[in-house]
Amino acid sequence: MSKTYEALEMIGEDLILIDQRYIPLSFDYFTCKTVKDTAFAINDMVVRGAPAIGGVAAYGVYFAAKEADGNIELFDSLCCELISARPTAVNLEWAVKRVKNVALNSNFDLIKIRQEADSIKAEDIAMNYALSKLGSDIIKPNSTILTHCNAGALATCGWGTALGVIKQAHVDGKNIFVYADETRPRLQGARLTAWELVQAEIPSCLIPDSAAATLIRDGKIDYVILGADRITANGDVANKLGTFMLSVLCKEYNVPFYSVAPTSTIDFETKSGKDIVIEERDEREVKFINSVQVAPLEISVYNPSFDVTPHENITGIITEKGIIRAPFDVNIEKIKQGKTL
Amino acid sequence: MSKTYEALEMIGEDLILIDQRYIPLSFDYFTCKTVKDTAFAINDMVVRGAPAIGGVAAYGVYFAAKEADGNIELFDSLCCELISARPTAVNLEWAVKRVKNVALNSNFDLIKIRQEADSIKAEDIAMNYALSKLGSDIIKPNSTILTHCNAGALATCGWGTALGVIKQAHVDGKNIFVYADETRPRLQGARLTAWELVQAEIPSCLIPDSAAATLIRDGKIDYVILGADRITANGDVANKLGTFMLSVLCKEYNVPFYSVAPTSTIDFETKSGKDIVIEERDEREVKFINSVQVAPLEISVYNPSFDVTPHENITGIITEKGIIRAPFDVNIEKIKQGKTL
Repeated sequence: MSKTYEALEMIGEDLILIDQRYIPLSFDYFTCKTVKDTAFAINDMVVRGAPAIGGVAAYGVYFAAKEADGNIELFDSLCCELISARPTAVNLEWAVKRVKNVALNSNFDLIKIRQEADSIKAEDIAMNYALSKLGSDIIKPNSTILTHCNAGALATCGWGTALGVIKQAHVDGKNIFVYADETRPRLQGARLTAWELVQAEIPSCLIPDSAAATLIRDGKIDYVILGADRITANGDVANKLGTFMLSVLCKEYNVPFYSVAPTSTIDFETKSGKDIVIEERDEREVKFINSVQVAPLEISVYNPSFDVTPHENITGIITEKGIIRAPFDVNIEKIKQGKTL
Repeated sequence: MSKTYEALEMIGEDLILIDQRYIPLSFDYFTCKTVKDTAFAINDMVVRGAPAIGGVAAYGVYFAAKEADGNIELFDSLCCELISARPTAVNLEWAVKRVKNVALNSNFDLIKIRQEADSIKAEDIAMNYALSKLGSDIIKPNSTILTHCNAGALATCGWGTALGVIKQAHVDGKNIFVYADETRPRLQGARLTAWELVQAEIPSCLIPDSAAATLIRDGKIDYVILGADRITANGDVANKLGTFMLSVLCKEYNVPFYSVAPTSTIDFETKSGKDIVIEERDEREVKFINSVQVAPLEISVYNPSFDVTPHENITGIITEKGIIRAPFDVNIEKIKQGKTL
């Protein structure tokens, strides 16, 4: 069975992260002791994946409260530093605001602040188990599943979302086979998902992102299951670059396409994917792989971190509160109002 | 204006190749003196691109004639070694057979054999200029063009096919902008096309393969123009992995999709793309980038070198004899019979 590993863990006063920049070449830890450390870890992708970023940022607010020592202006500015570390993931802002509120309402009671961060982490893990069971229930036995990027234990506070569903289907004895897109430019699929699949002993195969198209056309994929970094009120999904391309292929060839995320990923305030600002990342992510140069320095690079998949291309969004299907806007509104789907 | 460089050049009795495995990190030459050298250069992708492989293999037959020294059985086996170096490109077999025929009909006259190889090279360059002019004529001023892999001077005996059209449009003052897909796993776009675009001083930008989808959807691409490794009698195109994905997006969002190749790329004997055997390459191409490991060694890899784009997704195939459009089977038959399009 799968070995355990935690993307983030508070030990004493230190936040210990698995340094995801170097897996699978090396398995190191990165220690955050300050807001600055924490913002760097998020920005440089020591930790990545929307729910994991949320968990890390929650503890970042704990560091901010310690550093501000009652100075509200400084506390505010440190929280802003955390939020601005990466723009697209909604969980980051959500987690910071939630812990910040506890800080302000408790007159900076450090024990309560840390409890709130601990709660965010525990709730995330509980939600992941819940949505994984809901997701596994729809997977038919002997299915082949394609996933993109990494929405596993490393991308969350534990267990995973999209990869959580996949691992659950494996645990439930569904006899699945998994194709993992390598996911350029940061290769989270090759480095992290492949590593998690090996750990979980799930029969699987790594492919270049471009190989997915032929597999989908040729009927070799039964489901595409991947994560989400931000879901808007109409059901559009911002997720790792490459997600939208897969959705077009799935629509063309009638392959079920599921996004998996806790409801904390839903940005109820943003109407549609058109309103999402997509993070553009450094050109060095494309021109260099680790430290190896693979393109001429003179050429410019367009390196968007995410793309937006319109809800028309999505079969369902698997959450801990149920599977959201069309009409997405109506069903997302139900979730907002606390109604059952 | 663009600097000149030749993917292959006979100097004395040596065939000198630009070693395309290490561009842009280093610009070295690889010398072939034997059939074995030549087959290795093709197989290990010292040289790649269907027309360039054809040119190199033509000189390989010259080496074969020298090595066989009149022994027809040995000559045959050396020619087979060349043909089997890479399975998908039809030009390879075409060029070997053409020079082989001259060898057999001239009683191994080395001067005539070398002349035939020289002719193949010269004809390829002439065809590339011809098709580039035909292609440039259809490009509207101020267009943005997306290309995939490398179908430039480095992929041919000179000037290029798809990138030839693009360079010609630039030379013709069309004020174009080019997006180049990096083209995993071998990164021919990042390494070679980006390098050629910089040499030719064409305004351009490198993108991860997955970024093309959003650009196409958002109306930022006016044409997709790329090469072909094999064209079947019905107009299906085998080309670098990733081509098919682009064709689906172009069809969905009404973007003209052109494949560019000399008519020697047409395999009149093969009915449709379904009959093409797709080369699967070593998993190390995906697991390692240069010598850097980017995936766990334990996971398996599916690494097809090409995919097949059905003719329904293709706007036109730009050749030196004109632009082939639907009905593709009828128009390809016309070319076979030497009629005008």
